[in-house]
Amino acid sequence: MMRIFAQFSVGGLVCLLLLGCSSVTTKPVDVPRNVVFMVGDGMGFAQVKAYRMYADDPSTRLVDPLPMDALLTGAVSTDSISMDCGESESACTLDPYGTTDSASSATAYATGRDTITGYLSVDSTGNPMTTVLELARAHGKSTGLVATSQITHATPAAFAAHVADRNRYSEIADQYFDNQWQGQPMVEVLLGGGLSDMQREDRDLVSEFRQAGYEVALDRKGLLDMQGDRLLGLFAPSGLPQAWDRNEETPSLAEMTRVALRSLQRNPQGFFLLVEGSQVDWASHSNSIAGTVSEMEDFVAAIEAVLDFAGSHNDTLVVILADHETGGLSLGRDEIYRWDPRPLRDLKATPAAMTASYLAGEESLSSIVATNIAFQLDEAETLSLDAAPRDEAAAFKAITDLFNRRTLTSWGTGGHTGVDVPLYGFGPGSERFHGVMQNEAIGRVMREVFLPEK
Amino acid sequence: MMRIFAQFSVGGLVCLLLLGCSSVTTKPVDVPRNVVFMVGDGMGFAQVKAYRMYADDPSTRLVDPLPMDALLTGAVSTDSISMDCGESESACTLDPYGTTDSASSATAYATGRDTITGYLSVDSTGNPMTTVLELARAHGKSTGLVATSQITHATPAAFAAHVADRNRYSEIADQYFDNQWQGQPMVEVLLGGGLSDMQREDRDLVSEFRQAGYEVALDRKGLLDMQGDRLLGLFAPSGLPQAWDRNEETPSLAEMTRVALRSLQRNPQGFFLLVEGSQVDWASHSNSIAGTVSEMEDFVAAIEAVLDFAGSHNDTLVVILADHETGGLSLGRDEIYRWDPRPLRDLKATPAAMTASYLAGEESLSSIVATNIAFQLDEAETLSLDAAPRDEAAAFKAITDLFNRRTLTSWGTGGHTGVDVPLYGFGPGSERFHGVMQNEAIGRVMREVFLPEK
Repeated sequence: MMRIFAQFSVGGLVCLLLLGCSSVTTKPVDVPRNVVFMVGDGMGFAQVKAYRMYADDPSTRLVDPLPMDALLTGAVSTDSISMDCGESESACTLDPYGTTDSASSATAYATGRDTITGYLSVDSTGNPMTTVLELARAHGKSTGLVATSQITHATPAAFAAHVADRNRYSEIADQYFDNQWQGQPMVEVLLGGGLSDMQREDRDLVSEFRQAGYEVALDRKGLLDMQGDRLLGLFAPSGLPQAWDRNEETPSLAEMTRVALRSLQRNPQGFFLLVEGSQVDWASHSNSIAGTVSEMEDFVAAIEAVLDFAGSHNDTLVVILADHETGGLSLGRDEIYRWDPRPLRDLKATPAAMTASYLAGEESLSSIVATNIAFQLDEAETLSLDAAPRDEAAAFKAITDLFNRRTLTSWGTGGHTGVDVPLYGFGPGSERFHGVMQNEAIGRVMREVFLPEK
Repeated sequence: MMRIFAQFSVGGLVCLLLLGCSSVTTKPVDVPRNVVFMVGDGMGFAQVKAYRMYADDPSTRLVDPLPMDALLTGAVSTDSISMDCGESESACTLDPYGTTDSASSATAYATGRDTITGYLSVDSTGNPMTTVLELARAHGKSTGLVATSQITHATPAAFAAHVADRNRYSEIADQYFDNQWQGQPMVEVLLGGGLSDMQREDRDLVSEFRQAGYEVALDRKGLLDMQGDRLLGLFAPSGLPQAWDRNEETPSLAEMTRVALRSLQRNPQGFFLLVEGSQVDWASHSNSIAGTVSEMEDFVAAIEAVLDFAGSHNDTLVVILADHETGGLSLGRDEIYRWDPRPLRDLKATPAAMTASYLAGEESLSSIVATNIAFQLDEAETLSLDAAPRDEAAAFKAITDLFNRRTLTSWGTGGHTGVDVPLYGFGPGSERFHGVMQNEAIGRVMREVFLPEK
């Protein structure tokens, strides 16, 4: 409730300072020193609602709000220029009704400009477009990227690399070191997965970063001990394990975020920090409601950490949104008017980890599932799990089907969908983020609010 | 764009008057004289987006905004107390994770209080709860209900009737006449469908309303000629035909809304008007994307009429929302990153009307469909349509499957889903409607803003 007051006070202050408010939407009047830009990759309204119902305290009458619920101010329309190439690249035509991917959507956020699906902060002809992170650094601010994917994945990469193909992870990793400002790599804090992209046969960027003065951590303890201003933390070969599958070696997104904030806040000029809950998207691609809720839990804990910081640093703008919805998630099925989060509570592992255990040993699938859940499998469920061949795709599908049926979840696709995604704002400048906004408008407005031309 | 300024000016004025804004969320400071409360039944974010893409002008680079897009301020969580009765009513238990229906959701909006699914403005023990419409009348304001369903259907009924079963249409119709204030029926303007509920063998309410001084219209011309202050317009035996299937006898929702506003605005004390786009829900229940877009078009035109009115009457609060999402609509399918509105453009009828033509004659289904669409059926589509038996459900499904495939639409269920729905506000008091709100909070806040206790 205090958060609502705080947000409205800021809006009110803006109005009073201007002695009239009709221009409040066109002029930045209270420039935030810091921006934390938070992307729940693939996080539609349904993903948020599923997690809210999962996280609900059953002893209260109503479903309890999430930390960002009161900050919802609008939605983002995630259309993008999309390329329909058919079978040959020379036959490509622009598709006005394409659904964006993480690369073009993050490019819109990072640069304020639209691009082709799969491109990272280059325009449709391949020319680099300056990002808000690069501009922030040029203004003397510190910069950071935090993600649960490999740190070279599309969303973080769009803020600090320029490549016409999001899959060129090695090239993106190289650019993180080679794209420099005043003799130092452009990004001062890099925390996530992706060790195998950084430490390769052809180039050892971990050594290069270390020699350039970066503190390096390769596990959770190393992360929590970090004290420097320039940090490289790589906690998995590519993406981190999903939140419910992590051991003590692997940090949470909230832990990485807090370490990044502790470091970045030392710069009196301020900072730009991107935080991505990367794997909401991956879990929704595979139509796993358990994985989706696991990754939403990780992302929402990071949101809480950021709002705690911003609550005591009133010069910090926080924008929280998604890049697109993934999976066409519906909280209902078979004409039953209910969605039940309870089968997901107290899970000991996600379906991905249960599948890995199954493939690694001799145990039956139903027995592996039974040891990881807090409800009783019925006979039909047991038979159905044990009918799956010892094959990754089949076993994974048998487990995700179980949770989809039990929770009454349905999915429309294994890809992205075109529905608008949630937009939340807090702090100075957040009054500029409201209504339905195009993703490229988000990038333009962020730049106007945060780095106004003098 | 002007609408954004207008809204922010209002918010700013509130702040200036208070000389500080921290209390803007708790005290009503600028009481609206009129409220127009608009419900798109079943209208989730995906239904809005589908219509936005359909209505897009293809000659502009970006998808064009809808009239209400800039007014999006949050979302509504449509949870409700739901009854899980199993096989016997005596075994009913409350289900904390139930998905609401139109009756309980409209009750939450009308009374600020939650109730059992299917109940209309009575509490869980059957006791009546006063509605905002009744309170407005008691404050000397005028009152109106406008819908494209029968006017006795759940959403409008919750504002002016008290029944523990939404299906008792005759009883609801009786209450519209018998529930009186100062010797006159409680609702002064009733426009929609439902003639068969009002003119029955056991009671002719049309005559009773006429004798009580109501002007009565039974077709579009009659509606447009209406001049009085008390109006009963019934334009179909139950629900109106869908927008794309209407002939010249049947008015649009926007036309009914404009006539209602013209009449209600004469009361210097102000008015409360409910406007429902009722059949977005029905079309989404039947997983018909064409029907859904037809009904969204009708509802959005009514929104435009209301915003035109509110733009020139700055004492009018407009709240636009849905009661729940229907169908689990996804704008994507088969891992294809696109949603294509073009097959819906220039349709001459909805699948429901095409099905009726098919059942009424001897023509093949593919031939009926071909005369109503603006694209060419391919051979597989023709064969698939003509394989459907001359049976209503099969023919309808064959047609809706065609449009779902062509547009790349998928659906999760034939019922309602639990995802949050959009919330838009305009005018004085609209700053109180923001963030994620429970449906019952909407009803409470509307009452505080509109009818504050002195």
